[in-house]
Amino acid sequence: MTAEQVARPTLAHIAEIAGVSVPTVSKVLNGHRDVAASTREHVERIVAAEGYQRPHKATPKPRRSRAALLDLVINELDSSWATEILAGTEEVSREHGMHLVLTAVHAAPTPGKGWLESLTARGTRGVILVLSDLSARQRTELNRLSIPFVVVDALGRQDPTAPSVGATNWHGGYSAVQHLTSLGHRRIAVIGGPEQMMCTKARLAGYRAALEVAGLPHDPRLVRHGDFRHEQGYLQTKALLALPTPPTAIFAGSDLQALGAYQALHEHHLRVPDDVSVVGFDDLPFAPWTAPPLTTVRQPLRDMGALATRMLISLIRGEKLTASRAELATNLVVRGSTAAVKR
Amino acid sequence: MTAEQVARPTLAHIAEIAGVSVPTVSKVLNGHRDVAASTREHVERIVAAEGYQRPHKATPKPRRSRAALLDLVINELDSSWATEILAGTEEVSREHGMHLVLTAVHAAPTPGKGWLESLTARGTRGVILVLSDLSARQRTELNRLSIPFVVVDALGRQDPTAPSVGATNWHGGYSAVQHLTSLGHRRIAVIGGPEQMMCTKARLAGYRAALEVAGLPHDPRLVRHGDFRHEQGYLQTKALLALPTPPTAIFAGSDLQALGAYQALHEHHLRVPDDVSVVGFDDLPFAPWTAPPLTTVRQPLRDMGALATRMLISLIRGEKLTASRAELATNLVVRGSTAAVKR
Repeated sequence: MTAEQVARPTLAHIAEIAGVSVPTVSKVLNGHRDVAASTREHVERIVAAEGYQRPHKATPKPRRSRAALLDLVINELDSSWATEILAGTEEVSREHGMHLVLTAVHAAPTPGKGWLESLTARGTRGVILVLSDLSARQRTELNRLSIPFVVVDALGRQDPTAPSVGATNWHGGYSAVQHLTSLGHRRIAVIGGPEQMMCTKARLAGYRAALEVAGLPHDPRLVRHGDFRHEQGYLQTKALLALPTPPTAIFAGSDLQALGAYQALHEHHLRVPDDVSVVGFDDLPFAPWTAPPLTTVRQPLRDMGALATRMLISLIRGEKLTASRAELATNLVVRGSTAAVKR
Repeated sequence: MTAEQVARPTLAHIAEIAGVSVPTVSKVLNGHRDVAASTREHVERIVAAEGYQRPHKATPKPRRSRAALLDLVINELDSSWATEILAGTEEVSREHGMHLVLTAVHAAPTPGKGWLESLTARGTRGVILVLSDLSARQRTELNRLSIPFVVVDALGRQDPTAPSVGATNWHGGYSAVQHLTSLGHRRIAVIGGPEQMMCTKARLAGYRAALEVAGLPHDPRLVRHGDFRHEQGYLQTKALLALPTPPTAIFAGSDLQALGAYQALHEHHLRVPDDVSVVGFDDLPFAPWTAPPLTTVRQPLRDMGALATRMLISLIRGEKLTASRAELATNLVVRGSTAAVKR
């Protein structure tokens, strides 16, 4: 018996000092609910003060199978867009007893140098890429190590055969603009996301299709690109308002860009929707509470995160995916930011 | 030499098929930038088609020291409040070469049964608790294993000596209500968060202090509790409007509750701020874009996440903290949802 073992206080010792029974101390240590709050606090204080340590046999043993990790790589953590995707991913991971390691790549398109080494060292089983990419080396290494990955909203550089999840962006763009043409708008601008992104391309194609169906011409001056953030919505709207014939409606490409459009319109003393209609994209939680409440295309972001995680877990188990690409439905939510064009 | 090794295509083989030099193939595989995009794509396609695998010596070796993980346990991933805290935490973790494992506890106050076992199995070095708690057993085990933890916005049950980060909630509540009294409001309601939370208690105490300084009575009917979400803001405002003498101003306790208040007031045909002033708490990214733009108390959520992570890393290194509790300054941001009381 070592000195350390001699010095270690026992359950009985704690019970004695606390003036409670040994089973009560045991219950407190095991987090049982049938102990009064005051008793629990009292016992915990004594446990801490006496430096009680559980005997070694009760130590949770490292069980590698329980430490299963998934890596989620995301462009930015800067809006509830990210939170919604994360929430769906976290929920499905947890259901499968897996934990989620989070990396934001910020300005870089791919995770930095140490990421791959760290990932292999910690034994990650699979990777979810959200608006982010891997370098050729990172992809080759993941393939070699049989670590699958699933893409949510491709950046556009990826291997098109990589398993991926998105929304029905074409249909979303189409329905937003079809809504505006049905209200009589003929000069409809669009502020897309970054040009190379797949979701941007698909939404723009939907925009063009809706114009075509309505027999409207395609004016390239009405097509602008932002980065999905507020400021670009503001700046691109200012540029649109400077045109000889400004648009009467703006499909803003994201809810944040729509709020930027609101601000620019407000500064030009133009009212939404009386003077200019605005449609967003995403339907983030704040969209119903803007003024006016935002008409927008809902993306099921939480479901997209959840589905990507389910696909990844299937791949980890060596199952074959029924489809390597899944697009979840978008739907137009009409609120107060769109109205018939002024005659 | 095994059959598998014989069958493995070499760099030279890839270079020959691609019609490029071996160094070019090598550059593509290592993600160097000085390769034309078209060449890179061409080489990558051939690498994939031929099933090239890097020779074993290039395998990243598991280096335990690089797999350092921190666990972040958070109540919910349901608003940009969570994103802001996460962003600060992720940034500092990455600066220190550490990766973040994310767990949301949802309705439960503490992470579930498998969490502790998984955490020890994956070798997590420290834990950040955001509006969540540990069971007595989990805390005892972390102490025993010398895995430190830092609390962001205590749930109220924790050991008060645990290292923690918060905002100056008392001061935030005080300045919100002092702003309202200076505008002449005398019936000021508050919708706090859950009653047991430390931040709620501190904000309420600030509310009472500001009333007292202004010589106003404390009417318990004007004190309500929500859960920081939109719906409770709505329901508690409805209850306040049903009082014989409703308030002329509401300190809503969170930005989401403030938006709920907006909705209830709107349904009662009361204008913000002409009829009723509203003050939020948090200053989430959407706060400037609501209508009217929300007057609110800014919490530096990103900085709070960052500071908690720095404290945790100090503890992991065995350094002593200069203070076990840090409160970062809140400040009132006056926008358009508050105005002088109607005479």
